[in-house]
Parts: sequence; C-alpha cells; structure tokens
Amino acid sequence: MTFKPADDNWEQRVRASFARQGAMHYIGATIQTLEPGRCAIALPFRPELAQQHGYFHAGIVSAIVDSAGGYAALTLFPPGSEVLTVEFKINLMAPANGALLIAEGRVIRSGRTLTVCTGEAHSMSGDARTPCALMQQTLMRVKA
Amino acid sequence: MTFKPADDNWEQRVRASFARQGAMHYIGATIQTLEPGRCAIALPFRPELAQQHGYFHAGIVSAIVDSAGGYAALTLFPPGSEVLTVEFKINLMAPANGALLIAEGRVIRSGRTLTVCTGEAHSMSGDARTPCALMQQTLMRVKA
Amino acid sequence: MTFKPADDNWEQRVRASFARQGAMHYIGATIQTLEPGRCAIALPFRPELAQQHGYFHAGIVSAIVDSAGGYAALTLFPPGSEVLTVEFKINLMAPANGALLIAEGRVIRSGRTLTVCTGEAHSMSGDARTPCALMQQTLMRVKA
Amino acid sequence: MTFKPADDNWEQRVRASFARQGAMHYIGATIQTLEPGRCAIALPFRPELAQQHGYFHAGIVSAIVDSAGGYAALTLFPPGSEVLTVEFKINLMAPANGALLIAEGRVIRSGRTLTVCTGEAHSMSGDARTPCALMQQTLMRVKA
Repeated sequence: MTFKPADDNWEQRVRASFARQGAMHYIGATIQTLEPGRCAIALPFRPELAQQHGYFHAGIVSAIVDSAGGYAALTLFPPGSEVLTVEFKINLMAPANGALLIAEGRVIRSGRTLTVCTGEAHSMSGDARTPCALMQQTLMRVKA
Repeated sequence: MTFKPADDNWEQRVRASFARQGAMHYIGATIQTLEPGRCAIALPFRPELAQQHGYFHAGIVSAIVDSAGGYAALTLFPPGSEVLTVEFKINLMAPANGALLIAEGRVIRSGRTLTVCTGEAHSMSGDARTPCALMQQTLMRVKA
Repeated sequence: MTFKPADDNWEQRVRASFARQGAMHYIGATIQTLEPGRCAIALPFRPELAQQHGYFHAGIVSAIVDSAGGYAALTLFPPGSEVLTVEFKINLMAPANGALLIAEGRVIRSGRTLTVCTGEAHSMSGDARTPCALMQQTLMRVKA
Repeated sequence: MTFKPADDNWEQRVRASFARQGAMHYIGATIQTLEPGRCAIALPFRPELAQQHGYFHAGIVSAIVDSAGGYAALTLFPPGSEVLTVEFKINLMAPANGALLIAEGRVIRSGRTLTVCTGEAHSMSGDARTPCALMQQTLMRVKA
C-alpha cells in the first residue's frame, strides 16, 4: 500500500517527536527507516534490556514494536497532530536472542480519528533473521 | 478467586526469577505484592522512562503490566517450570502521569499448558490513583 | 463502578437497537440484564450454533460477548449516538458445552470518543456455571 | 511463506471438519480456497446476518475470520490432531456492507503446540472490494 503524507514536513516532525522520547534514548533505540506509513526502529542488545535468560525482555520488544507502529501512523497525520496508542496486541513468537532487534510498523488503515497498524520484530544474529513478535494496533490522532 | 500454589517454595522461586531480569532492575521496578495468582509491581517515575510529554512511556507501562501478569502466573506453577508470555493485549486508557506506577496481574484461569491473566496499571500522584492501562494476556508453562 | 446514563431514555433506546439486529434475533439471543454500564445476553443452545463437537461455536460465543460489550457501552451514550466496535480480543478458555450461554459486558472506561469494556461468557449446565470466554474491547461513539 | 503439510490427507481432513460445523452451514458459509497454511471462506449476505443498519453483523464477521484462521492452522497439523482457538483479536475497520464477505486466514508461525495466524475480511460489492476486518490469532493443536 502507498500513502501520501498530509504534511510536507512529515519526516522532520516524526524525527523530532522521537528525539523527545526519553525512554527510546535511554534504551538505545534509533529510527532505522522512515517512509510514509512505515517506520523501522533498531535496538542493539545490552544486558540491561534482558530477561532472565539473557534475551531481550518481552516488555522491551513490545515497547519497540508499539513505538514503530506509532511513528508509522504519525507519518500520515496533518500538522498540529499527535499520536496516542489506544491499544495493541502482540504475540511473542520466539525468544529475541540476537545482537540487534529490528521492529517495523506499517499502517493498514488510516482514518480521520483512528489508525490501524501492524507490526513485527525480528532479532538479527549475524546473517540470521528470526521473527520474534507480531503486533496489531489501534492509534488515535489528537491535536497537539 | 483463591488459588493454591503447586510449589511450597513458590514465593522464593518467583522472587529469584524477578531478580534475574536485568530489564526490571534497569528501569527500577520492584515487586510490591506477591500472592498465589497475583503480583503487583511498583515503578517510580524517572525522566528516562518518559515519552515526549514527560509521562511514563506506553511501552514501559506495557512492559510492567506484562511482567506483573507473568509473575502472577508463575506463582501457581509446579517446581521446574518457567513462564513465557504467549501474547497480550493492552488498552492505554489515560496518560500515566504520576510519580509512581503500580501494575497488577491476576490469574483468571490456570490450565495445564496455558494460563490466562488480566492486568491493570494505575498511576499514583499524591493520594490520587488514576487507572491508565488494562491488559488481557495468555501465558505458557514450559520446563525450566 | 457505578455509572450515570447521559440519556433518561437509555433503556428504551438500547432495547430498540437490539431489536433491530437481525443477527441476534436469528440465533435466538435475548437481553437478560440491562443496567447503566452493564449488559447480559442469554443464548439457548441449538444444534445450528454448534462447532464440530456439538458445543457452541467459538464464533457464536464471540459474537454474543462482543454484543454484550457494545450494549453496555451504549447505555451510557447521549441521545443521537450509536456504538461501533473498534476492536476486541477474546480468550476462549473452555468449551461452551452447556444448554445456555450467558455473556456479560461491563464498561471500564467511558470516554468522549472511546469506551473500553470487558466481557465474559459462562455456559450453564443445570446448576453448573463454567467460565468459557474473557474479552477486552474498544468501542467508539458515533452520531446516529 | 510456503508450508509443507504434515498429513498427505490434509485437504480431505480439513473439509470434513468444516462440514461437521453446524454453525458454518447454518449461516451459509463455504470454503472458497484451501492451501497449506491458508484458508478463505465465503459468506453471501442474508438479512438474518445483519446488524441494525443492514450490514453484516460484526459478530458474524468475527466468526468467519476466526474460522478461516482455524482452518488455515489445521491444514498443517499431523493426523489425529484438532485445532482450538486460544484467543483472537480483531479490528473492525469498515462496515461490511457488500453482497458477499470473504474472510482469509494465513499461518504466520506453526509451532508444535501453538500456531499464530493473521486474518482479514473483505466485503465485495460488484467489483469493489473493501477491507473490513483485520485479525491476529493464537491456536492450539490438541489430540483428536
């Protein structure tokens, strides 16, 4: 699906919003790809992000996939809008045991009030790419 | 609902598992209450846990509620078991803008393979207690 | 939680909406209880509602729980409003193998645009009452 | 993704299971496409399947999408297995107001115990095809 942004300045606006999120900076996440209706976030592994087996903690995986969906939605919003996650549902399909986590969000339906996104996460270990999470999400556009 | 643990040593086992989670320690979360079928986790606010408005990041809220549900499930498992989150769904109902976040998980159905939990999060600001998230979750018991 | 309806005529309006739903009539569902923020729907078993083992079909269970949540939300809406299900998530925890299915929806948060409900279904077999489904749902208020 | 069935007789087994479901027959649903890891179900509109505006009832849409995911999962199971829906989450994105509803389920991850599927529904009105629902689902393999 191809989307046309409602704001010529969409990319700068999305990157500025990401930069203001203390939590993303704190854990070391960065935007890897940004297109209208799509956002990928990269997160290198650190022991502080682990669960009891030394893999990425499921809560961290969920936080990154949720954010990727939120920023995918925000790319299509008009100026003066912000994005709220109404809800999301995530399946954790395999341990996220690589050196790098890539989370990707995609807009499926962009409505006036509500946006529906899907998301997924892969863990990368050398050349191996393991799908570890699948998400479905509802977001709301609100005035900034 | 009242539950009878399958392991006399349940409390020590759950606390030891929590202590091994780098991510929980890193963000400053602690177990507040632990009973058979129920776990509450407390997380004081820090700027590193914030989204762009200075509230708790939705991903952090989700991570804590997911963990509370997981540990609630683990209280009822027999020795030699671990818990995996199969999936969860969370509604973020209000900004988590207090000084303290309390997440609570409760077991609704404890089956041989799968456990179903509900969870919720409240943000505390002085005496005010604002419900900010509601979760429904599926967990799996696996051999340690 | 207690709720105050925004419409004195709430009960008549909810019952009239239910009566217009061909699908509820077709499968034999009726409103059992209706209060502000709460709705229970009853559905007697019939072979036409079964899956391959002769129990209530999961899709039928889901349809009834979704409807119970929707009507619970509608009880609190102002005149001239209708309710749409944005999304729901349901765990099917046990076979729905009784003679009667009771689904109940409850409002957890009633916002201006969005409402969050929980729902559950029990199957009744004589005096035995088996919880068979647990739901979490997001609904939207729209102009009629 | 391509999948290899674990049972040479997979197609006959899936069709026989569908034929035993009273509920699918009752509402007039038929299997439209069946491949390893994929199932599409077709449902022509009838007034008995409507909500208050004369569109397909959301509960009926959910029932069909859930079934499509369940049969997609079943195509990959070994002989002597049955499929149970553990849970599903569905977004109802647009009114299902066409003459025909097509629901499609696809396996995303096929594990030993649990399978994860996605699903979607489209309503068809002449040549127009409107996406109306998006689903994410967890299923369990059990002994028949």
